[in-house]
Amino acid sequence: MSLQSPRGTRDFYPDAMRVRSWLFGHFREVARRFGYEEVDAPVLEHAELFIRKAGEEIVEQLYHFTLHDRHLALRPELTPSLARMVIARQGELALPLRWFSIPQCWRYERMTRGRRREHYQWNMDVWGVPGVEAEAELVAAVFALLARLGLARGDVRVRVSSRALLESLARGSDLVGERFGALCVAVDKLGKIGAEAVAAQLTDPAGPVRLGAAEADALLGFLGVRELAEARRRLPAAAAPALAALDALFEGLDAYGVADRVVFDASIVRGLAYYTGVVFEAFDAAGDLRAICGGGRYDRLVESLGGRPLPAAGFGFGDAVIGELLAEKGLLPTLPRGLDDVVVAVAGGDDGGARRAAVRYASRLRAEGRSVELALDVPLKRALRSADRSGAARAHLIGPDELARGAVRVKDLATGSERDEPLGER
Amino acid sequence: MSLQSPRGTRDFYPDAMRVRSWLFGHFREVARRFGYEEVDAPVLEHAELFIRKAGEEIVEQLYHFTLHDRHLALRPELTPSLARMVIARQGELALPLRWFSIPQCWRYERMTRGRRREHYQWNMDVWGVPGVEAEAELVAAVFALLARLGLARGDVRVRVSSRALLESLARGSDLVGERFGALCVAVDKLGKIGAEAVAAQLTDPAGPVRLGAAEADALLGFLGVRELAEARRRLPAAAAPALAALDALFEGLDAYGVADRVVFDASIVRGLAYYTGVVFEAFDAAGDLRAICGGGRYDRLVESLGGRPLPAAGFGFGDAVIGELLAEKGLLPTLPRGLDDVVVAVAGGDDGGARRAAVRYASRLRAEGRSVELALDVPLKRALRSADRSGAARAHLIGPDELARGAVRVKDLATGSERDEPLGER
Repeated sequence: MSLQSPRGTRDFYPDAMRVRSWLFGHFREVARRFGYEEVDAPVLEHAELFIRKAGEEIVEQLYHFTLHDRHLALRPELTPSLARMVIARQGELALPLRWFSIPQCWRYERMTRGRRREHYQWNMDVWGVPGVEAEAELVAAVFALLARLGLARGDVRVRVSSRALLESLARGSDLVGERFGALCVAVDKLGKIGAEAVAAQLTDPAGPVRLGAAEADALLGFLGVRELAEARRRLPAAAAPALAALDALFEGLDAYGVADRVVFDASIVRGLAYYTGVVFEAFDAAGDLRAICGGGRYDRLVESLGGRPLPAAGFGFGDAVIGELLAEKGLLPTLPRGLDDVVVAVAGGDDGGARRAAVRYASRLRAEGRSVELALDVPLKRALRSADRSGAARAHLIGPDELARGAVRVKDLATGSERDEPLGER
Repeated sequence: MSLQSPRGTRDFYPDAMRVRSWLFGHFREVARRFGYEEVDAPVLEHAELFIRKAGEEIVEQLYHFTLHDRHLALRPELTPSLARMVIARQGELALPLRWFSIPQCWRYERMTRGRRREHYQWNMDVWGVPGVEAEAELVAAVFALLARLGLARGDVRVRVSSRALLESLARGSDLVGERFGALCVAVDKLGKIGAEAVAAQLTDPAGPVRLGAAEADALLGFLGVRELAEARRRLPAAAAPALAALDALFEGLDAYGVADRVVFDASIVRGLAYYTGVVFEAFDAAGDLRAICGGGRYDRLVESLGGRPLPAAGFGFGDAVIGELLAEKGLLPTLPRGLDDVVVAVAGGDDGGARRAAVRYASRLRAEGRSVELALDVPLKRALRSADRSGAARAHLIGPDELARGAVRVKDLATGSERDEPLGER
């Protein structure tokens, strides 16, 4: 009998669960303030919803299996499920839609050690807004979250670019939909596999992209650009709308007061095939960790799944990297259990009267909204030791003596002071 | 491309999600008041954690598959995962433990239509309390939840029995662990497959139980008993401790003020092999629906999984049947979106000043904790129609005119009244 949870998964004991609830509470509160509505979809979907042919890591790591002739997968991300939900009610749903969710997502990593196979991912998505005010809002929400978590203004930077810039460079090759997605997925691997390997993928005559060598060089060279002004100089005229959109995005970010924490970075491409326009990632300023979150515009996803064209943008913000950053900064809270009272029926020789009184007394405290642990027939010493350890504010002791004088002995567990309270008064 | 979610699963659109959050909020609040701490475990576990040989429906319907030589399952229930977690830290964890969780659980029903393959299940479990005060507390928590949901005192009844009563009847057969579990699982099918089929299973010489015909008859006959007094008359002396425990349980329930809604019912056995003592189920008083929740004592589960003996009791309370009952009673709330404000930068010929002002204004409202939807460059009429539909309390309109006079036009969407507010004041 294996008593381990599957490798790469987590058990949430109460202390870890409190931290998770604390983090999710901040996710929810920020989303609420930005007017986003919470949704959810099944953790299990038909695998084909997630399978795209662009060579994405997320598809290679799909947690999938066949059961009773159905090819199913644990979701690796939420966006395709959201698109499915939007399409199923397209026409009914009032646009723009602002949705958020905190799904558990799964990936099957065969090779690595230590990395997890599941994580929770805060998603915020806007459907039906074609302009970059959507992206500005999403980036502003990320910063609002980071501020709530206690991070300082300088702790996190967002790097932003647009896939439309790459598209303008590759336009000579008459790249369309799937080929362009594959191009971006390949280019996104630059940091992992190096320029030569990426160039080989881009120019492979049997591959999905099939760029010319000069185009591939121009593309890879462009990824080194870190200034919008330089990008403007190096890009063809076809890039003008995308550059204007990035200008508008920075204007919007300025209105939100976060533009100083966002930089243009042509190397930001994202590894998902479906992004079409602005793409962004957030990183810790020290550069020690992987991306904290990532997102962008995916105007053709709904169409590619059979829906009517619908512009969309969103991000995914996992619970792993932010957890590492908060821990590094000493910002991960140690949250108390939050127990208010321990009510103890002290073990004694009575006929159960103390027990009954303790139950009734605890019920009254609970009806007032207090968090109450009830201990029946416990020796006094053990009860007090356990109450001390529980973090409760007060212990309420009821034994035969208390019962006889119609009182509860209330002990303040912080000060140790004790007093009688009338048993019947609450 | 299949645009359906897998059969038997649910998408939660915002309206359904609000109801789910409302219900989960009540689960959490009741658990908190009773001093239970929230935990969670992976939705995916090693299948062997759930596989028992007693012929349980829950094992027959296991959602399991083999992936990279691992036999995995989507959890059909949480209790074995909790036991795994307890065992992994046995000795470290201070007893008694009071844990709750709201896991999504899965079952693969091959034959039926209309029933779902996933549900959420509120679990409350106590570890380390040998006495029936644990069961009394659990049943009291169920009633506390039902009251919070708006159900009347008479709407739900709890039926209770103890497997130890059946054990006393079968003791002549020297039944131990697994055989007794299989006996209970078989007996639990009485309502579904009838007395003859159950008797055949109990007496099958090649089956796991192998009772004599007379014992099987006595057992099945006993299941018709609905009075503790009659049970006492019909049972052998070996039943005395179990009967005393049921008496103590009713005393405890009386202290909680819920004894009048709990009845003894010898036919309550539960379909899980691991229960050992008190078992209970809650039903709607009209008797139209399946069990609302079920639980009991499972003192040998930790031991059977390789841990040191640890008494335990708990219940699972699904979101399906309670949803049906609440709908039937008109108690399922229609919850508003909860949006406070819509801020609109009215489309006009200005240079983006209204947009910037609207972003800043919305940010200030959000910093005050309000839920704000921001609409940029929207024609006034469409913005107001959309604001009306959103359920927001107020629309805040900023266009070139407002900007020129340094004002925001605030429209109360309930009354239609409008007024100017200074743009810079917030």
